[in-house]
Amino acid sequence: MAVALEAGLPPEFALIARHFRPLAGPGSLDLADDAAVLTPPLNRELVLTCDAMVGGVHFLLDDPADLVARKLLRVNLSDLAAKGAVPLGYLMTVSAPRGTPDAWFASFAAGLAEDQARFGVSLLGGDTTSTPGPISLSLTILGHVAPGAAVRRVGARPGDGVWVTGTIGDGALGLAVGQGRLADPSGHLLRRYRLPDPRIGLAISGIASAGMDVSDGLVQDLGHLCRAGGLGAAIDAGLVPLSGAARAAGPEWLAACLTGGDDYELLLAVPPDREAALAAAAAEAGIDVARIGHFHRGAPRVSVRGPDGAEMALPSGGWSHF
Amino acid sequence: MAVALEAGLPPEFALIARHFRPLAGPGSLDLADDAAVLTPPLNRELVLTCDAMVGGVHFLLDDPADLVARKLLRVNLSDLAAKGAVPLGYLMTVSAPRGTPDAWFASFAAGLAEDQARFGVSLLGGDTTSTPGPISLSLTILGHVAPGAAVRRVGARPGDGVWVTGTIGDGALGLAVGQGRLADPSGHLLRRYRLPDPRIGLAISGIASAGMDVSDGLVQDLGHLCRAGGLGAAIDAGLVPLSGAARAAGPEWLAACLTGGDDYELLLAVPPDREAALAAAAAEAGIDVARIGHFHRGAPRVSVRGPDGAEMALPSGGWSHF
Repeated sequence: MAVALEAGLPPEFALIARHFRPLAGPGSLDLADDAAVLTPPLNRELVLTCDAMVGGVHFLLDDPADLVARKLLRVNLSDLAAKGAVPLGYLMTVSAPRGTPDAWFASFAAGLAEDQARFGVSLLGGDTTSTPGPISLSLTILGHVAPGAAVRRVGARPGDGVWVTGTIGDGALGLAVGQGRLADPSGHLLRRYRLPDPRIGLAISGIASAGMDVSDGLVQDLGHLCRAGGLGAAIDAGLVPLSGAARAAGPEWLAACLTGGDDYELLLAVPPDREAALAAAAAEAGIDVARIGHFHRGAPRVSVRGPDGAEMALPSGGWSHF
Repeated sequence: MAVALEAGLPPEFALIARHFRPLAGPGSLDLADDAAVLTPPLNRELVLTCDAMVGGVHFLLDDPADLVARKLLRVNLSDLAAKGAVPLGYLMTVSAPRGTPDAWFASFAAGLAEDQARFGVSLLGGDTTSTPGPISLSLTILGHVAPGAAVRRVGARPGDGVWVTGTIGDGALGLAVGQGRLADPSGHLLRRYRLPDPRIGLAISGIASAGMDVSDGLVQDLGHLCRAGGLGAAIDAGLVPLSGAARAAGPEWLAACLTGGDDYELLLAVPPDREAALAAAAAEAGIDVARIGHFHRGAPRVSVRGPDGAEMALPSGGWSHF
């Protein structure tokens, strides 16, 4: 008997063709091959990063699939933004329980399509498998920068200002909302938890002496910049930009804003003589930036002055998986 | 209170520093940053691919961690080999249950170190998270080829021979061994299931008119080459190279060898006038190759002549996750 393969593609391939092929971009070979093949941008350095997201850990199991997809893409875009990189494309793995409804994949792909258009990236390749556990996702993103222009965690100098984009703490409070621990009349906090705003387009190369995105909590991530640079940092809680919704949660949530994760804002070291350039870049990109403190000589530690003028006692770090 | 971060890194970061940082190569920024930054090889095209592996689906939960790690790396190396690409580096995500012993990570990293040295790749970046499900892994690998030299699934022509490397079916039978359905006195089948041999180093560019690696079963994957090229293929089961251990399993396992997955051998279309070049490349790399049939004009279907000379009735495809 001849095996009539053309009529009998297994469901896995049909699923990929139906939902993921429309997302495929240049170099992807239409997802019909074993690998993507692409010419790297001329005279640019590559920037590569990846993140995993697991149902019940990084998102809530009843979160809409399109928002889960967009968050997966956006947390990786945020890492590119922290490098000052231009997004190029991404590869993705999706491990889902057997019986995951086709509508889940349709919504997941629709979310990706929306953000691909918004951020100028396309799908290069991927792998779709089953799992006996919760939905488990990974995404590797590829971007590029001018040679030597990537902003790194190392590089902050004493006297540099500590700057952040957007508002801090919405993600941590949004998680509390999702868990039923906090009210969110406007829906702003939950939206920010589910759908971060990666700061792609803020031209930080040549302006920030160091930087990263805030994913594990402002204080912990600022500690990373301190350790990388071998210096301390002092910030003022009263200068940390909070959204109206975060302010409305009340002062008892301030520590959660400063130490909770999922902000996906940029945390930058900016020398005083480049503040004007930062302001211009921020205005050009339509992104708010705020100076919340400064780096200083000393042991790599972060001190936070509270609203009463005294140093705040904070839990010693952000989120750890182990 | 100042938060003394230098003394209190969360366990996640310590785990990364202890086990994964020693694997980090050029461009990885020592895994101490948000992304890898590297200069792409001059005048080369990039080849990118990724695979996920889930405990209980792609490997057995009691498989040694070093072998799981090496398989994860090797299945991706196999995709590069199918393109004729030179490996460069990889990014990896590891989602593991809380309480996964440190010894598991140590063994996992030792396996990676061994195969990094063997295949000339290094770790560029990654993400480590917890999961309430089984261990869930993903790996994205980056390689390079001369411009236009990547072997693709499309390109087979009528009259091209169907060629394979190594031996076919060991992986499928090794899975049966692991599940207790088959004896394996020599241990060869289980070893091949757990540790495929990616055919990195076989210089197929300019020789193979099309190719891919066999991961979902020989017949199904040959069907992919047929569909991509718009032509049929006829193979002879008696020409398919089987290991001594697979032969010893008996003729009732032949169909499993032809349709089971996890071979990670190369499946190539080679024009008759390039067979000598293939033989020379195979000898140079120390890899066995065998001609098992040919491509022909016609509908994209695969026919398999069995040991009795009649066409074999085979299940209609290989493995599908959904």
